[in-house]
Amino acid sequence: MKFSLTILGSSSAVPTAARNTTAHVLNVHERFYLIDCGEGTQIQIRRYRIRFGRIHTIFISHLHSDHILGLFGLMSTLSLLGRKSPLDLYGPAGLEEIVTSHFNHFPDKLLYLIQFHSLEPKGKTLILSDKAVDVFSFPVQHRSPAWGFLFVEKVSPAGGKVPVPRSYAFCTDTLFHPPLIENFTGCDLLYHEATYAASHEHRAFATAHSTAGQAGEMARLAGVRRLLIGHFSARYKDTSLLLAEARVAFPETTEARDGDTIEIPQLFTD
Amino acid sequence: MKFSLTILGSSSAVPTAARNTTAHVLNVHERFYLIDCGEGTQIQIRRYRIRFGRIHTIFISHLHSDHILGLFGLMSTLSLLGRKSPLDLYGPAGLEEIVTSHFNHFPDKLLYLIQFHSLEPKGKTLILSDKAVDVFSFPVQHRSPAWGFLFVEKVSPAGGKVPVPRSYAFCTDTLFHPPLIENFTGCDLLYHEATYAASHEHRAFATAHSTAGQAGEMARLAGVRRLLIGHFSARYKDTSLLLAEARVAFPETTEARDGDTIEIPQLFTD
Repeated sequence: MKFSLTILGSSSAVPTAARNTTAHVLNVHERFYLIDCGEGTQIQIRRYRIRFGRIHTIFISHLHSDHILGLFGLMSTLSLLGRKSPLDLYGPAGLEEIVTSHFNHFPDKLLYLIQFHSLEPKGKTLILSDKAVDVFSFPVQHRSPAWGFLFVEKVSPAGGKVPVPRSYAFCTDTLFHPPLIENFTGCDLLYHEATYAASHEHRAFATAHSTAGQAGEMARLAGVRRLLIGHFSARYKDTSLLLAEARVAFPETTEARDGDTIEIPQLFTD
Repeated sequence: MKFSLTILGSSSAVPTAARNTTAHVLNVHERFYLIDCGEGTQIQIRRYRIRFGRIHTIFISHLHSDHILGLFGLMSTLSLLGRKSPLDLYGPAGLEEIVTSHFNHFPDKLLYLIQFHSLEPKGKTLILSDKAVDVFSFPVQHRSPAWGFLFVEKVSPAGGKVPVPRSYAFCTDTLFHPPLIENFTGCDLLYHEATYAASHEHRAFATAHSTAGQAGEMARLAGVRRLLIGHFSARYKDTSLLLAEARVAFPETTEARDGDTIEIPQLFTD
């Protein structure tokens, strides 16, 4: 039973030749959850051979364009490819108007229904519980209302063995804000933004982003198993400095690269 | 003095891993004209090392999403990169509302002015005349109002030699419609859509597109020097059949591939 994350975009506001803007796909038992949808996400989905038909739910963290511009093209393509089943879309309250207004301008209508679910500006909240996962949202600290997400696998015993539920937390775009750790303490994989190096810490604060060192510190405080950093400013051609800075506080850190897939192995209780 | 075309996207409605949706950049004397702007155009611009600052004018052929979805991200990035000079945008009358409405939904405003110019539903019309080119628009035959463009180089004698003006015609999305040839008779390079193979001619007609054979026939009738075909349906993994079909009527045909640059050499009158 799979629990794996594929990175479709690891840049921040401006994409580069090697890094698209934010989008992640979490595969839980062959159900695909898309988290954020920067421009070009549908192209990355093709490039990394993810099946469009498997995507049934999309989560949008906040309404900055580098996290949502790919929605329009992806939604059109799903319709052109013959999708009929409803698409669940979780995001800030304003998302429904943005999407509806956009499609009102175009003659070709979507052939499936979009079911909008507004995120609530309150603490850790269960927003979805299906066969494969429980999904929680939690507010983070950004310039506009923004949320992180926690995915916790649902497990059932098989052949006398009891699997340990796996978990993934997505935490971007946000200031360094230690109280957030209560939302993902002990999770298997934490994605935390690391837009800047320590030398740009003032800029991180001014723009409500984090440094790589702060991402490492969050992982250490939360006692997670692994940290994945991303949402890198396009100014860093070489992100190895960011990786090194995060590893000071938290050695089990990887840097996100477009196309990478991180598998969380299944473990069993004794 | 350069006159060259770079293909940023050669797919039709749905992008593939190898082909983005439509966007072309014409370089005339180091002035860059962007023609259509499918999703991911800003990423292609980076990938193929075109300088953002050199793009001063954008032309949009029609309001289908595979020709405009990249505008929003490109415009945001130009602002983030510090653009202050106005951007001229030529397109169908509804484009201004689409762009304005989109940016009204986002907190980050553009730091430069967009100057909208509506295309007129009348025959071949001079819409722009600057130091490098004359640009003409002409209506084509599609499901929604759509235009082609003709770019004609401006030349001046140098060292006693008189250059021959070079020209490029962009003709997509359109039905096979021979009367259109009067808009680009004898041009150096014609880009004509070739969405389908002959075996899908009925589908081409039903969707107001052309086959590759029809694109070849248009080039032959117009007496152009070279034909470039593109806007390929994603169903063709191998486009060599389309190329072969176009070459039946017009042997001097090339297929568009993302990242290709076609240089038109400078010639001189005797």
